[in-house]
Amino acid sequence: MAQAGVDAYFGVRSENARFLTGFILEDGEDRVAGNSGRFLVSGDEVVVLADTRYRLQAAAQAPGARIEAVTYDLAALWPDLMKSVGAKKVAVEAGFVSRQLWQQLAAAAPDVELVEAGGWVEAQRAIKEPAEIERIKSACAVADRALASIIRYIRPGRTERELALALEWEIRTGGAEALAFGVACLVGPNAALPHGSPGAAEVRVGQVILFDFGAMVDGYRSDMTRTFFVGSPSGRDLAVHGTVAAAQSATIERLRQALRGSQPIPSGKEADGAARAVIEAAGHGEHFGHGTGHGIGLATHESPSLSRAASEDPLPSPTVFSVEPGIYLDGETGVRIEDLVLFDTSRSDVEILTCFPRDVVVVGV
Amino acid sequence: MAQAGVDAYFGVRSENARFLTGFILEDGEDRVAGNSGRFLVSGDEVVVLADTRYRLQAAAQAPGARIEAVTYDLAALWPDLMKSVGAKKVAVEAGFVSRQLWQQLAAAAPDVELVEAGGWVEAQRAIKEPAEIERIKSACAVADRALASIIRYIRPGRTERELALALEWEIRTGGAEALAFGVACLVGPNAALPHGSPGAAEVRVGQVILFDFGAMVDGYRSDMTRTFFVGSPSGRDLAVHGTVAAAQSATIERLRQALRGSQPIPSGKEADGAARAVIEAAGHGEHFGHGTGHGIGLATHESPSLSRAASEDPLPSPTVFSVEPGIYLDGETGVRIEDLVLFDTSRSDVEILTCFPRDVVVVGV
Repeated sequence: MAQAGVDAYFGVRSENARFLTGFILEDGEDRVAGNSGRFLVSGDEVVVLADTRYRLQAAAQAPGARIEAVTYDLAALWPDLMKSVGAKKVAVEAGFVSRQLWQQLAAAAPDVELVEAGGWVEAQRAIKEPAEIERIKSACAVADRALASIIRYIRPGRTERELALALEWEIRTGGAEALAFGVACLVGPNAALPHGSPGAAEVRVGQVILFDFGAMVDGYRSDMTRTFFVGSPSGRDLAVHGTVAAAQSATIERLRQALRGSQPIPSGKEADGAARAVIEAAGHGEHFGHGTGHGIGLATHESPSLSRAASEDPLPSPTVFSVEPGIYLDGETGVRIEDLVLFDTSRSDVEILTCFPRDVVVVGV
Repeated sequence: MAQAGVDAYFGVRSENARFLTGFILEDGEDRVAGNSGRFLVSGDEVVVLADTRYRLQAAAQAPGARIEAVTYDLAALWPDLMKSVGAKKVAVEAGFVSRQLWQQLAAAAPDVELVEAGGWVEAQRAIKEPAEIERIKSACAVADRALASIIRYIRPGRTERELALALEWEIRTGGAEALAFGVACLVGPNAALPHGSPGAAEVRVGQVILFDFGAMVDGYRSDMTRTFFVGSPSGRDLAVHGTVAAAQSATIERLRQALRGSQPIPSGKEADGAARAVIEAAGHGEHFGHGTGHGIGLATHESPSLSRAASEDPLPSPTVFSVEPGIYLDGETGVRIEDLVLFDTSRSDVEILTCFPRDVVVVGV
């Protein structure tokens, strides 16, 4: 804040509120919370806004903060709020504050300058404390156990939706407070939809089945994808799986070399490139449309990004991100393998936090 | 659009995308979808943006739309997109487009004027088609059955979390594709937290237990709250329950009078006032901090609002909204009763869509 010459920071992202103040809005709750959970940080004070519904919760979860009563009309409160923290120049989460709210706040206190802040808290969140890493590991362990416990339930005729619900149930009764995100379970050609939702499609012999899922433990999330074979794998599916596995290994190997000192610390763009080169060499470059990975923590997708468009700066450390190349053949099949990796330059190897086997796994027989 | 003199409408709300284009982003998915699902409507064309992950899904769900490939960088695409629909003046969902994106789009095509659009699609969504009402009714029916099926499972010693999970399971295996929102189950003094989350607190004799929950059927949502008594109700809890029930009846009666022609169509503010007057007369005005109701449909909270700050225009019709007064005594107890009401000025009575009994219900004995 001092570098940018601002007196205060106004935030609205629920993950940033949790990180900086302790106040928790669950997934989806931000849609109905209005201004509750929005926060202000000045040089010597943290203020959490809460309407009557959230007042007691805010006081309990953010004991170090001043809880300020708010209604739907934040602009009405804004001038007094600015005076109370002595702010003349405020950084605002411009990627998340709506255009409309920005205009209202600017008009409500014309003497207070608003400046766009992008990624300030997100950059802090990318670097993980030991306690944060432990929580992500716990979430990975819950997810590993849940997948192991439903694998025998995968049988021809079961639907995507039944299997997704079974996996969700295991996660939520097996130590997680919530899912990290809705379970994806996709069979056969549906696996070519990288963000498809589970539906009525049934497991069939000779096809793949893809699970993409995660758990949440104490606010921190896991994320893992496995693509299994139902009965004997087709040659095509086996070849695609082999290419994806090799691509994932290439990125992980590139990270290892950096930790062992034989290569410089890669950027997110370089880490992506290692996996992408393998897929391109196999002739599937156009079938891998997304990035190789994303940071994870309080949000499922956060910094750092591993993609063609990612930063060219060296990766932060210690940090946790996914490595998840995929190949998607429209109308035919799809394979993605995703693991979470702890990248810590004070250590000599990466640690893979998701432990379920990455090999060719045949199910339903 | 013609009234406002704009050539096109640019939207980012997932509910509006579903309403206008058919493209579905599930709850939470908008956090990771990037620009996918954002849309543009011109006089003669609908355009849905989709990155590679969502391309096939968009084509299937929005067959009448042109699917336009997009990356994380919408501004790069914006000038060509504007040219393709011949737009010179575009209405933008300013309450949902971030300040940052607005600035980027304005800079990318300086010859295209952006104007703030607020509530245009939301006003259309408030007025429900018969098929929309049927879906909300179906969601209410699933929720009613689910509550009935877990009521015998409520026993002293069970935790809020166990009961919330049991209710969720019944909803999701009983005909709903998803929850409308996370189930609230709150016991005793926790019921004074109008948006609290279920935790480790146990059901105890002599306390209340509050459930606030909803189902989703084909995208449309239900919302219901019941506050039960575990064992013999205390005099205090019974009195509070009676006041809340009378307040709910007062708003419903006011709506009935309008449909029978003995009163004008109330505004959302007047409909709120009817319930609020009862609670204030009982000395609990300060213990009822939220509004009396909200519209519901593709979103859990949408127009119209029934609250002190609501519009003074007559309520729209036909529309569906909740009537949900509550009284919250910090550290002691809380009671809320919530039902969904169909308000249709072509009919002579309101229809209450949530059917579970509203009376004093004693459980756990």
